[in-house]
Amino acid sequence: MKNKIRIGIVGYGNLGHGVELAISQNPDMELIGIFTRREPNLLNTKSNVIHISKILDFKDKIDVMILCGGSAKDLDEQCPMVAKSFNTVDSFDNHGRIPEYFEKVNNIALKSNKLSLISVGWDPGLFSLNRLLGQSVLPNGKDYTFWGEGISQGHSDAIRRIKGVKGGVQYTIPVKEVLDKVRNCEDINVSSCERHKRVCYVVCEDNEDFHRIENEIKTMPNYFAEYDTTVHFISEEELKEKHSKMPHGGFVIRTGITGHGTKQKMEFNLNLESNPEFTSSVLTAYARAVYRMACEGKIGAITIFDIPLGYLSPKTGEELRKELL
Amino acid sequence: MKNKIRIGIVGYGNLGHGVELAISQNPDMELIGIFTRREPNLLNTKSNVIHISKILDFKDKIDVMILCGGSAKDLDEQCPMVAKSFNTVDSFDNHGRIPEYFEKVNNIALKSNKLSLISVGWDPGLFSLNRLLGQSVLPNGKDYTFWGEGISQGHSDAIRRIKGVKGGVQYTIPVKEVLDKVRNCEDINVSSCERHKRVCYVVCEDNEDFHRIENEIKTMPNYFAEYDTTVHFISEEELKEKHSKMPHGGFVIRTGITGHGTKQKMEFNLNLESNPEFTSSVLTAYARAVYRMACEGKIGAITIFDIPLGYLSPKTGEELRKELL
Repeated sequence: MKNKIRIGIVGYGNLGHGVELAISQNPDMELIGIFTRREPNLLNTKSNVIHISKILDFKDKIDVMILCGGSAKDLDEQCPMVAKSFNTVDSFDNHGRIPEYFEKVNNIALKSNKLSLISVGWDPGLFSLNRLLGQSVLPNGKDYTFWGEGISQGHSDAIRRIKGVKGGVQYTIPVKEVLDKVRNCEDINVSSCERHKRVCYVVCEDNEDFHRIENEIKTMPNYFAEYDTTVHFISEEELKEKHSKMPHGGFVIRTGITGHGTKQKMEFNLNLESNPEFTSSVLTAYARAVYRMACEGKIGAITIFDIPLGYLSPKTGEELRKELL
Repeated sequence: MKNKIRIGIVGYGNLGHGVELAISQNPDMELIGIFTRREPNLLNTKSNVIHISKILDFKDKIDVMILCGGSAKDLDEQCPMVAKSFNTVDSFDNHGRIPEYFEKVNNIALKSNKLSLISVGWDPGLFSLNRLLGQSVLPNGKDYTFWGEGISQGHSDAIRRIKGVKGGVQYTIPVKEVLDKVRNCEDINVSSCERHKRVCYVVCEDNEDFHRIENEIKTMPNYFAEYDTTVHFISEEELKEKHSKMPHGGFVIRTGITGHGTKQKMEFNLNLESNPEFTSSVLTAYARAVYRMACEGKIGAITIFDIPLGYLSPKTGEELRKELL
C-alpha cells in the first residue's frame, strides 16, 4: 500500500477543526499533528496537539502544512514562517493584497525549495476558477459574482463594535430580481451594492436606544450605508438558537455572446451549511495537489490557477479518464 | 507585439464554423486555414480553405489543429492522422471508448513529439471537471448529471429513421421534481431514465399512421422505451420555424456531508442557445492551453484533467492573481 500523505494543521479555530474532520474523509491522508500557539492540553481534540514552537521537529515528518490562521492577518505572519521549512496551503482572502502576499511567499518558498499554494478556498478559490473559466470560454461577455445567502464575519463584527450592542450577525443576501436578470442573460451593470442586501439580527444591552443603533448600522459607510439594509432586534436566546451556524454560498455567472448574437450562460453556485467546513474541505483536497506537485519538484508560490484538477483526486489518470471524463 | 497563436481547423460542419467564429473573438489567435475533405471552393466562408490532402504543407505554419470532425467516428480516423504532424485538440465524445482512444493518440503524439488534448467540450469537458471537483472536495457525497433542456442528435436521428417520418427533433429535459430533490440535498438513487424525460416533435409523410409512429418511438429500446416520452406531430413549417436551433445545457450537482452531518452543495450549470458554438468556444480556449503546454515541451495525449486553468486565459499569471483571484 502507498504511503499516506502526512498532513499538519497550523491553527485550531473553525478552519483547523474543519480540516481535521476533512482528513478523516480522505483515506489517503493522515493527520500528524495540530500546531497551536495555545497551551496544547487546552485544545478539545483527540488528535496530536503540539506547541507551535516545536514545529521544526516535524521538518521531515509532514508533507504538507495546512495553514488555518483565522484571518488574513494571521497568515501574513504564519505562512512566511512555515514556508521556510514546509510545503503549505492557505486560504489568504484579502483580495487586494494577494499580489504582494504572493511575492513574499514565493521568495521564501523558492529559497526553501518548498511549494506554497496561497488563497485557496471558495472565494478566493473555486469562484476564482469559475471567473477564469467563464472569461476564457466566453471572451465576449460579463461575469457576475453574488455572495450569500450567508453570514459575513466582517459585517457581523462591525455591528458588534457599536456601543450598546451585545451580539449580532449579518446575512448577505443576493437580490433575487438582479440574480434573475443576470440568469436571463440581460446585459446589466450592477454594483455589489445593487446585487446584495444586508439583513442584521441584533441583540442590545438593556435600556439601549434601538433607534440610535439601527441608525448607526444603516449609515455606517462602506459596510451598510450603500446597501438595502434591514435591522431586526432579537433576544440573546433567539440569536443563539437560530443564528449560531455559519451558512454561506453564492453564484458566479458568466453570460456571453458567441457567433452572431447567440446567448450562452455558465453558472457555478454553492449552497453551504457550514462555510468553514467547506473551505476546509477545499484546502484538504488541494493539499493532495500540493503534495503531488512538490513530489514532482515544483517549488515557489502557486495559486489555484496553476493546478491541473486531476491532482485533486486520489484516483489515477487512467481511472479518471475511465470513470469521470 | 507577441506572435499570434496560429490555428488550423479540420472539418467544416457546425463545430468547425463555430471555431472560426470563436477565433475572431480571441485577438491573440489567428486562423491560418480550414482543412476539408470537400472541394474547397464549395465552402461558404471567407477564410482560407485548403484540401485536407495538402495539410502537411502547413507543418511549420500552424501551432494547433482543432479537429472538428462531426462525430466520434470521424475523429477516430482524423486525430491519429493529424497528430503525426501537429498539436491537436478534439471533442471525442464516446465516453465508453475514451480510454482506448487516449492510448492510440498518446502513442502517436509521443512519437511525433506533439501534444494532443482529447475529449474537451462541455460533456466530456467542463462537466467532467466539475464531477472531479465535486468528488475531490466532498468525498462523502454523490454527484448527479442532468442534460438539457436541449436537442439530442442521436435521439433525433433515431426518430428520423422510422418509416413514414419526414423530419423530427428530440428534446432531452431534466425532470424538475428530481432536480429539485437533488438540489435540496436529498440523498436519492435515480437512473438516467428517471432524471430525464424526452419530448419529440415529428413531421410525418402524407397519409401515414400517427398511432403506429408514436408507438414505434415510445417503444424503441434504449432510446425511448425506458423514458417518459411525449410525441407531438407538427407541420414541416413549424419544425423549421421553431426547432431548427441547437440549444442545450445541463447540470452537474454534487451534494455531500462534511463534519457531523453538515450538508454542502456544489452546482455547475449551462444554458446554451447553441450547443456547437459553445463547444467550439471551449475547444478554442483549450487550444491556447495546448499551445502553451506544447511550447513548454509537453508531449503525448492529455485530457482536461491535466491542464492548469490559468493556461486558458490570454492574461499573465500576474494579471490573473490581481484581477480574478
